[in-house]
Amino acid sequence: MEALVQKIKSAGTYVGGGIVKVDSFLNHQIDSELMLGIGSAFAEFFAATEPTVILTAESSGIPPALMTGVKMGLPVVYARKKEPLTMSKKVYYAEAPSRTKGGNVPLIVSPDYLPSDARVLLIDDFLATGLTAVAMIDIVRQSGAKLVGVGCVVEKTFEDGRDQIAQVFDGPIHSLAKISLHEDDSITVTS
Amino acid sequence: MEALVQKIKSAGTYVGGGIVKVDSFLNHQIDSELMLGIGSAFAEFFAATEPTVILTAESSGIPPALMTGVKMGLPVVYARKKEPLTMSKKVYYAEAPSRTKGGNVPLIVSPDYLPSDARVLLIDDFLATGLTAVAMIDIVRQSGAKLVGVGCVVEKTFEDGRDQIAQVFDGPIHSLAKISLHEDDSITVTS
Repeated sequence: MEALVQKIKSAGTYVGGGIVKVDSFLNHQIDSELMLGIGSAFAEFFAATEPTVILTAESSGIPPALMTGVKMGLPVVYARKKEPLTMSKKVYYAEAPSRTKGGNVPLIVSPDYLPSDARVLLIDDFLATGLTAVAMIDIVRQSGAKLVGVGCVVEKTFEDGRDQIAQVFDGPIHSLAKISLHEDDSITVTS
Repeated sequence: MEALVQKIKSAGTYVGGGIVKVDSFLNHQIDSELMLGIGSAFAEFFAATEPTVILTAESSGIPPALMTGVKMGLPVVYARKKEPLTMSKKVYYAEAPSRTKGGNVPLIVSPDYLPSDARVLLIDDFLATGLTAVAMIDIVRQSGAKLVGVGCVVEKTFEDGRDQIAQVFDGPIHSLAKISLHEDDSITVTS
């Protein structure tokens, strides 16, 4: 997605080690027009997989998942990282190491919103180690629903997240921008 | 907003004590079409206040804030509850008691996205005690920016949140659905 690649190049801040700060448009301040385009790009790519629900994890997965849901006319479910007091007793549960905050985070989804006949499109902001996606895929497995696709806004190709996901899911994995890390610690951003 | 009132009546679950579970359409599973309508309603009501940025707190504030940002063509900033490792060193900071999870939660905003000349429209999903909104208003005060409005999707009129906000903000406070609690523990939902 060329607009996203250009935004990463113009507004992202590279801090070394393959880490690009994108909080000016993706995960702290949100560029709402760009996020609409991200939703359109996922909706177009995954249309043929015929999902019935978009699944993501709070918090930074919510904007791209919601825009994809808006563009496809589908409900969006986000895994909670703490169980609200009002949630029903039985839940689907997995844990994933936090990408940017340290420690493990729980991922909790109510069975009410992941019925066994659902066709699930998993959307997240970053694909790096892939461990959050693998945990979310485990939640889908617990529900008995069918995972039909995995979409990530930004993929770090120098981590093995895509391989981790491919070990548990043989369908389409699609990212809208890819960050490559070179031996001299420079990066390249491509669509 | 009549569509929201009808949705609360048809899909909300009243558990007593004025607590209505809305996680089937508002804060766990999101009805994307309803959320678009919520964004349109806020955009229309607050158009005259001429905001330049929408501010909210993660996670459940993000969907209504993002849809309002999309409808108004404005960036959306959400306060983080944990400081990401990639955030800049100086931050605006406040704390609010958690509505549904127990304990206090920190609210953190990077000064980069709340410049002193901003006109801030604060959007959140629930207005109950008002303490989250008051904490967010304190963050706006720290930034030197101007708060122009406060919009909440659902207001519990039997808690004193509106009064709490009115003590620190003399502009428009608007909710799209109001839940009243009666002496016999029954509720009424109105727009």
